[in-house]
Amino acid sequence: MSSTFGTLFKISSFGESHCPGVGVVVDGVPARLSLCAADIQQQLDRRRPGQNKLGTDRNEADQVKILSGVENGLTLGTPIGLLVDNKDQRPGDYGSMSQIPRPSHADYTYRAKYGIHASSGGGRSSARETIGRVAAGAIAEKFLLEQYGIEIVSWVSSVGEHDAGEIDMENLSRAQVDASDVRCPDPVAAEKMTAEILAARQAKDSVGGVLTCVCRNLPAGLGEPAFDRLEALLAHAMLSLPASKGFEIGSGFAGARQRGSAHNDPFVQKGERLGTLTNRSGGVQGGISNGEPVYFRVAFKPPATIGLEQQTVDYSGQPTVLEAKGRHDPCVVARAVPIVESMAALVLADLVLRQKMRS
Amino acid sequence: MSSTFGTLFKISSFGESHCPGVGVVVDGVPARLSLCAADIQQQLDRRRPGQNKLGTDRNEADQVKILSGVENGLTLGTPIGLLVDNKDQRPGDYGSMSQIPRPSHADYTYRAKYGIHASSGGGRSSARETIGRVAAGAIAEKFLLEQYGIEIVSWVSSVGEHDAGEIDMENLSRAQVDASDVRCPDPVAAEKMTAEILAARQAKDSVGGVLTCVCRNLPAGLGEPAFDRLEALLAHAMLSLPASKGFEIGSGFAGARQRGSAHNDPFVQKGERLGTLTNRSGGVQGGISNGEPVYFRVAFKPPATIGLEQQTVDYSGQPTVLEAKGRHDPCVVARAVPIVESMAALVLADLVLRQKMRS
Amino acid sequence: MSSTFGTLFKISSFGESHCPGVGVVVDGVPARLSLCAADIQQQLDRRRPGQNKLGTDRNEADQVKILSGVENGLTLGTPIGLLVDNKDQRPGDYGSMSQIPRPSHADYTYRAKYGIHASSGGGRSSARETIGRVAAGAIAEKFLLEQYGIEIVSWVSSVGEHDAGEIDMENLSRAQVDASDVRCPDPVAAEKMTAEILAARQAKDSVGGVLTCVCRNLPAGLGEPAFDRLEALLAHAMLSLPASKGFEIGSGFAGARQRGSAHNDPFVQKGERLGTLTNRSGGVQGGISNGEPVYFRVAFKPPATIGLEQQTVDYSGQPTVLEAKGRHDPCVVARAVPIVESMAALVLADLVLRQKMRS
Amino acid sequence: MSSTFGTLFKISSFGESHCPGVGVVVDGVPARLSLCAADIQQQLDRRRPGQNKLGTDRNEADQVKILSGVENGLTLGTPIGLLVDNKDQRPGDYGSMSQIPRPSHADYTYRAKYGIHASSGGGRSSARETIGRVAAGAIAEKFLLEQYGIEIVSWVSSVGEHDAGEIDMENLSRAQVDASDVRCPDPVAAEKMTAEILAARQAKDSVGGVLTCVCRNLPAGLGEPAFDRLEALLAHAMLSLPASKGFEIGSGFAGARQRGSAHNDPFVQKGERLGTLTNRSGGVQGGISNGEPVYFRVAFKPPATIGLEQQTVDYSGQPTVLEAKGRHDPCVVARAVPIVESMAALVLADLVLRQKMRS
Repeated sequence: MSSTFGTLFKISSFGESHCPGVGVVVDGVPARLSLCAADIQQQLDRRRPGQNKLGTDRNEADQVKILSGVENGLTLGTPIGLLVDNKDQRPGDYGSMSQIPRPSHADYTYRAKYGIHASSGGGRSSARETIGRVAAGAIAEKFLLEQYGIEIVSWVSSVGEHDAGEIDMENLSRAQVDASDVRCPDPVAAEKMTAEILAARQAKDSVGGVLTCVCRNLPAGLGEPAFDRLEALLAHAMLSLPASKGFEIGSGFAGARQRGSAHNDPFVQKGERLGTLTNRSGGVQGGISNGEPVYFRVAFKPPATIGLEQQTVDYSGQPTVLEAKGRHDPCVVARAVPIVESMAALVLADLVLRQKMRS
Repeated sequence: MSSTFGTLFKISSFGESHCPGVGVVVDGVPARLSLCAADIQQQLDRRRPGQNKLGTDRNEADQVKILSGVENGLTLGTPIGLLVDNKDQRPGDYGSMSQIPRPSHADYTYRAKYGIHASSGGGRSSARETIGRVAAGAIAEKFLLEQYGIEIVSWVSSVGEHDAGEIDMENLSRAQVDASDVRCPDPVAAEKMTAEILAARQAKDSVGGVLTCVCRNLPAGLGEPAFDRLEALLAHAMLSLPASKGFEIGSGFAGARQRGSAHNDPFVQKGERLGTLTNRSGGVQGGISNGEPVYFRVAFKPPATIGLEQQTVDYSGQPTVLEAKGRHDPCVVARAVPIVESMAALVLADLVLRQKMRS
Repeated sequence: MSSTFGTLFKISSFGESHCPGVGVVVDGVPARLSLCAADIQQQLDRRRPGQNKLGTDRNEADQVKILSGVENGLTLGTPIGLLVDNKDQRPGDYGSMSQIPRPSHADYTYRAKYGIHASSGGGRSSARETIGRVAAGAIAEKFLLEQYGIEIVSWVSSVGEHDAGEIDMENLSRAQVDASDVRCPDPVAAEKMTAEILAARQAKDSVGGVLTCVCRNLPAGLGEPAFDRLEALLAHAMLSLPASKGFEIGSGFAGARQRGSAHNDPFVQKGERLGTLTNRSGGVQGGISNGEPVYFRVAFKPPATIGLEQQTVDYSGQPTVLEAKGRHDPCVVARAVPIVESMAALVLADLVLRQKMRS
Repeated sequence: MSSTFGTLFKISSFGESHCPGVGVVVDGVPARLSLCAADIQQQLDRRRPGQNKLGTDRNEADQVKILSGVENGLTLGTPIGLLVDNKDQRPGDYGSMSQIPRPSHADYTYRAKYGIHASSGGGRSSARETIGRVAAGAIAEKFLLEQYGIEIVSWVSSVGEHDAGEIDMENLSRAQVDASDVRCPDPVAAEKMTAEILAARQAKDSVGGVLTCVCRNLPAGLGEPAFDRLEALLAHAMLSLPASKGFEIGSGFAGARQRGSAHNDPFVQKGERLGTLTNRSGGVQGGISNGEPVYFRVAFKPPATIGLEQQTVDYSGQPTVLEAKGRHDPCVVARAVPIVESMAALVLADLVLRQKMRS
């Protein structure tokens, strides 16, 4: 129950940090889609730790293996099992923390929920759980791009107090995003963000940030009224990511400060279809795509595990000081880029299949 | 598919503006809960239009009828059917708009989705659809309060550019919220908000706003790891509301600007349990409640239907000017208070039942 | 949870015998299907008690009201709420039985499950719950017939020890089935069945029977491999009916006695498609329709509530004698005909929509 | 969608004959259950081909690997990933059949459904898909036995025309079942069944059979009214098995020939609880367990793939003669014993968890 996402394009993920592997079963992928491991691997490579100096120095190859559902390079229409072995396990790193719940980390709540906890504390709330999402999302992306021309691009729009300037989101490419390690396509801001992350690492601290994501070329009509609106499913997907604290679509919280006459998007003719002159709606009206780009922002808090001393208490309530050991990311946002793209792809692939029943 | 919400405490809603009625089937309500129509009516009364001078002057009584699942004042454990008749139908009000999709409204996208549209345009995206949610949510609230002591209180924290000051959310009551028509417990801000809404109405315009909601006395352990985190389900619930554009929990977007050392919530002993000194997490760690109050904010855009002239195009792409007729709310936030509370209650009731399988 | 059936064509039913009404919400009905109450009423009329001398002498009109999802005679694509008022309530009839669980009835198990029970004992296990299924099934049937030419016809193939002879199921019509009150298209058998039912009634006893159902003109490809095979969903649907004890498709239990060389259905060319010379498979291979008629049988036990004296014990374990009062059907099979057809229609409509995602 | 089973104790299976592996993700297993690979392997060993002279001479070890969800011999409460490598792949065996759909086999329908087919023809309809079910079912069984004392035992009750005599199902053990290769605890019948299977093999033919299964020590109250009755979920589970054609619970089809006065099970006091004197109900009343043993029968047709010549047509409709190559089971029922037990265990584990929400 807790580990399934989607209605028709549906994934079931499994695995935690210190077990043999992490993976996912992807059900609902249409038959006859060309697919090989390399199609999936490219997004896993963008997600993996140790890509550059900004992240953890754990270096995990995270090679995906396709277990089922594909034959002779074509999908069969049956569930696709995907597996990534866990190679670089160091349970010892966490030993010293087993009696002290890390502040703002899942250690405490997992114990409250299950009465047991995995050796890494948070278990399934670990970033490693997102491997299955990214692997499944890569398949969803391929389906969306090949059959509908849908493109999804995410980037880092702020780190700490440093914000990116205006981005041309109608034309932004992943290559432009990946031009900087911090994955901010504004070079001036990218430099400041990089400095902030390195400063946080130097200080044994961590820092938060915000991602923006745009989805282009969606047909009008995606999204289900009432509970499964497009933005509701996106919000669900994004708030299910470790460390995320907020979501807004289109004008978002800023739009709540406006009057309707300033906020409404007038319709105009765009080629064969109606479009809108502005896009404060973020490509969605009444929960349903209108054919304009869908864009949204996701807030990520600073990672909870930091090397700095923290005054806290242990499980028995005794005051203590915690200095976390291990190799932790000072900032998750650059690696979160493919994860946000993947979750968006899973939502859209599901809604595309759901809309087919209306045809 | 589109009209079901929840896994164990599950609702299926139905109805649009101009059909005989709107309602909901509530499945999963435990047996032997005392329940009568008045328990449900009180939240419907807080939601209904025409309560005061701030909203539409449509006046709808919205009396709920319990169709099933209750006998002799006790729930049977079987599905509870709830129905509210649609009495004040005026399809004629919309006639003049049938050829012009309202900017930023669901008229256009519904037509793209279904190839047909209800006489009120948006059909199920109408605010009237929320009656079922509120009726079901009132049952969820009663269950949560009686069996767990869980309290849920929402209020208006901004209208346009006017923000409420600090609110003591640990002790805030609904009576304090309802002390002003605009449902802001900060009297100074409430006055400014009221003036802004009346000014918008006077100008045939509309205005957006933000709600905050707090859920108190949750046990630790609610929420499912990976996809059905507590905050993910809340975000899903809130972004499924008409006109909502954003959600943030705890520190939210502001937290993304901080360092971990400033953001982390240290643990402290609180009576029998561990608690946290601060609550930037918003009562949730790793997607699971930690026993602290859960609080979150929801952004609502200004209503799309305004009386002011708008330059736009009709369905055939011809430029035209739209002046919406009918009786429309200049601001939805005061009436959204019980709706937000209800959706929060539905999420929590579902997670409470889901956690029972762990026991 | 317990009261929802289907994945895309999905129904949520509610109501028990002695509440204001019974009904259903039908989600997933395609837009622009022509629909009015009379389309639904005709199957409800075939289901209702008191149609003729074979059943209970309760006479309930069971008029359906469409609450939502339809405008100007066309479906909107939104949930269709359907309601039938409970008019002929006689809770008093059950008073004398409140301390004695009826043998082979749901009285006892409902109390074990919920710790409470509706005044009619079985509550949701009452035959009255099937009203929602039949109402929803009538919509499914209309969709299947108009868009795919799919026809569904069920009939009574045995009552007690009396079996119908060979039936030409490729051409059987509902009119032929309804030619006898007992709904057996073999006139000789129908007469014996009628006599058996009247004899059982005379003896204050009840009698069981078997229904057969055929579904014609299905396209090949319906049914999902692994868990949601066509025959698995049909079996689920049929065993969810009150008093049903068995299901078999095609050759069924008799086929289990054969050798493969005698049982296999050879392929032959049939017009544009491949067909099979025989149809022991019952129109299904590997869980997926092959284009031949799907046919299956459903066993119904004799109704548990009988007027004859029964030696049993009361809830406290004290031996007692029970003579049930009230107006009970001596045999359910004739009235079960539209119920079985409706459940089959719901399964097929769901699979038709599910197959659309493959297109 | 097609490959998920269960609501709270939920499995997602993957894999076909000629891919790297087959497996399953088991979600909803309670935390702190002791579990190791050997607990699962014992049922896989009873399922695997090549155990004895009655089955195919393919010999597959089918060693299960636990990928996640277990640490230090205890379940974590998180999804348990299970994988069995496919070792003995011989795609070549099927080459000669690629232009001719096997009569009564899934070759044809899979092609109609997906427009593609796996090299083994039926792909997911292969018996190999049941490995995931058995592996998951073994976990469900362990949970049910340890926490509720629930025991599940299945056996072969007929092969072709040979029926087992009366079995003492209240006391039957798996050891007694496994005493014969054919898994029939009636030694006289077992001998005849064995001879029949060997004769079918000798004749390059196949033969069908029936399994019976009993589930003991269920608490009263399991099963959901309306659609998810205990017998409905069992029927769904059993008819989802390859080659199954029928299901009956308790008195089944024979009960449909009886009068109510002969069929009803009178209540009696049994220790602390009410029980029934007879058990024609099969342990279920109104879809809910009553505390008596639940027993049911499942019919399996003769396997479709036989070595005997069959007159049929190829995909282009040309008449041809098919002689299937490869190593095929002449009868599936002995190997189906652990599969039926596993599916029953999955249904019961799910209902046990679902009933917890009522507590």
